[in-house]
Amino acid sequence: MKAIYMFGAGDVRLVDAPDPILKDRTDAVVRIVRACVCGSDLHPYHGMPSTPGGVSMGHEFIGVVEEIGSDVRTLVPGDLVISPFAFSDGTCEFCREGLYTSCIHGGFWDMPGMGGAQAEGIRVPFADGTLVKVPGIDETSPLLTSLLTLSDVYGTGWHAATRAGVTAGDTVAVIGDGAVGLMAVLSARQLGAERIILMGRHRARTDLGRKFGATDVVAERGDEGIEKVRELTGGHGVRKVLEAVGHLPAYEQAYRIVRPGGVISRVGVPQYEDAPIGFGSLFGGNITLTGGPAPVRAYIEQLMPAILDGTVNPGKVFDRTVTLDAVPEAYRAMDDREALKVMIAL
Amino acid sequence: MKAIYMFGAGDVRLVDAPDPILKDRTDAVVRIVRACVCGSDLHPYHGMPSTPGGVSMGHEFIGVVEEIGSDVRTLVPGDLVISPFAFSDGTCEFCREGLYTSCIHGGFWDMPGMGGAQAEGIRVPFADGTLVKVPGIDETSPLLTSLLTLSDVYGTGWHAATRAGVTAGDTVAVIGDGAVGLMAVLSARQLGAERIILMGRHRARTDLGRKFGATDVVAERGDEGIEKVRELTGGHGVRKVLEAVGHLPAYEQAYRIVRPGGVISRVGVPQYEDAPIGFGSLFGGNITLTGGPAPVRAYIEQLMPAILDGTVNPGKVFDRTVTLDAVPEAYRAMDDREALKVMIAL
Repeated sequence: MKAIYMFGAGDVRLVDAPDPILKDRTDAVVRIVRACVCGSDLHPYHGMPSTPGGVSMGHEFIGVVEEIGSDVRTLVPGDLVISPFAFSDGTCEFCREGLYTSCIHGGFWDMPGMGGAQAEGIRVPFADGTLVKVPGIDETSPLLTSLLTLSDVYGTGWHAATRAGVTAGDTVAVIGDGAVGLMAVLSARQLGAERIILMGRHRARTDLGRKFGATDVVAERGDEGIEKVRELTGGHGVRKVLEAVGHLPAYEQAYRIVRPGGVISRVGVPQYEDAPIGFGSLFGGNITLTGGPAPVRAYIEQLMPAILDGTVNPGKVFDRTVTLDAVPEAYRAMDDREALKVMIAL
Repeated sequence: MKAIYMFGAGDVRLVDAPDPILKDRTDAVVRIVRACVCGSDLHPYHGMPSTPGGVSMGHEFIGVVEEIGSDVRTLVPGDLVISPFAFSDGTCEFCREGLYTSCIHGGFWDMPGMGGAQAEGIRVPFADGTLVKVPGIDETSPLLTSLLTLSDVYGTGWHAATRAGVTAGDTVAVIGDGAVGLMAVLSARQLGAERIILMGRHRARTDLGRKFGATDVVAERGDEGIEKVRELTGGHGVRKVLEAVGHLPAYEQAYRIVRPGGVISRVGVPQYEDAPIGFGSLFGGNITLTGGPAPVRAYIEQLMPAILDGTVNPGKVFDRTVTLDAVPEAYRAMDDREALKVMIAL
């Protein structure tokens, strides 16, 4: 089959890869219908060392089940399914409490022995635990665009907002106008936040953010941006800050705009390990830091109905659709901020 | 009056200081009856640069109101009062929501213009907001020993446990067998924790910890201690970790024993600013980091009844009582771990 591999920073290619086959009795093989390029794919696009064998890319997809292992109970060939960006057995103590990204037997699509989703097909381990069947529509539905956000960005934005404890009437700041930041805006709005300050400097993106529910946009960065947020919030900062970038300056911005007693909820994958958490940053103001890889498997069934009935349209984050052969160019366009998020239609 | 000043690392002296007088109309002047030396006083005792003018020490006290400013409404001379380790106006938006340590007009006793509590008397700003009257007993009561813990260590341990969300049936680890750690054990027990693992290596202290409710003691440190905690908790770590030390190794221990999805609640004043919070420490496991300076003012009225009726006896953390002139020696004894916590009786 055809698949997208990365061989080093900036080096993305369409290659011939082995067809996916069943390995374990709990596997399914899925023909991919929609996939996409993630903001987090840009991290290796910037920094990956040269890797002659290449790495299979992509972790978000919708597909049709083609084959199932003998122990798969809830799916049959022909089912239209959404996959989370992490696979999980669905039965361990972490899965049972909804923390699917800490599944004892789970993992990520870029692990050795796995294949990525920017491909024609994929082997899915623990198919019953991992995949969610989409009822009532087929692979020709225009709803696929919005449903695809349930693979990662919508559930990740939702995780940011729920982990922060956003509730009705809240004031929330969202740092980052990428797809996850915009989904955090939508999620905060759905949870009843009254004031949503979106910090981002790409006009087309922040305009879309306003459509998703942002009430204020702060384009300024650094001291100026922080000053602006404080002005908007009576001087003491924001109770709930959703950090959807992952770079250190975004975290630093977060603790400088959060109100004493408030919460910073991170969902941007941190591109740093050490950062300030002492008296002057988190401790002195009793700031809570939370977040992590979103267990989106827990949210797919919860968020799907509002997509199926047209209440929300998170698919608007996709501003370009390509076929598999144009994915290398899609990476470049996203990296140059020409495209917000690129969908791959197969 | 006589007061204790620190002039540099290891240099604590009894000196003659000006008598406290009313400055603002919301002040009270309090004659101090009980004070104590705090584990956090040992931080400057180790590292304070030579300061010829000296710094007035102490932030925990019970006293008798001697004089009140014209705007003080809730207190009269003769009242027996407990003071939190921070003063606060009691009326600002942070005080109204219980976050007294972030009071807009509040502060700490070691700030310029203030005086410490290891002294015969003290000026208390915002007396109505800061002080809590103790009903029904006088300054000769033996209950004063336990009531003094409400100034800091008991409320701080309580803050650790409540911020962590400790509830009935929980498994909790407490890092640190100092007075705050032991009060965190007592608090976790009061909140219904079923299993309380106390990490500390001073036998007399951990024995006291068992009396306060610890069910397990782990004396080992580093990898060995972490391994032991994991063994005790089925391999995945502890849901609620209360960090009552403030040094970086204690924080590192915390994120290495916390279960994915769990909480680290810090109340030991961090002696570091940067620390690991990336994928490998907090983010990957969706760990929440919370805590800060305890708004003990919020807890005094809540925790006092169980002391007054004898249900709890947190005063057991005091294992030595001295007069003011012996306080320099008390610092040394606490620093050498000869004394757990020293009370000053005036």
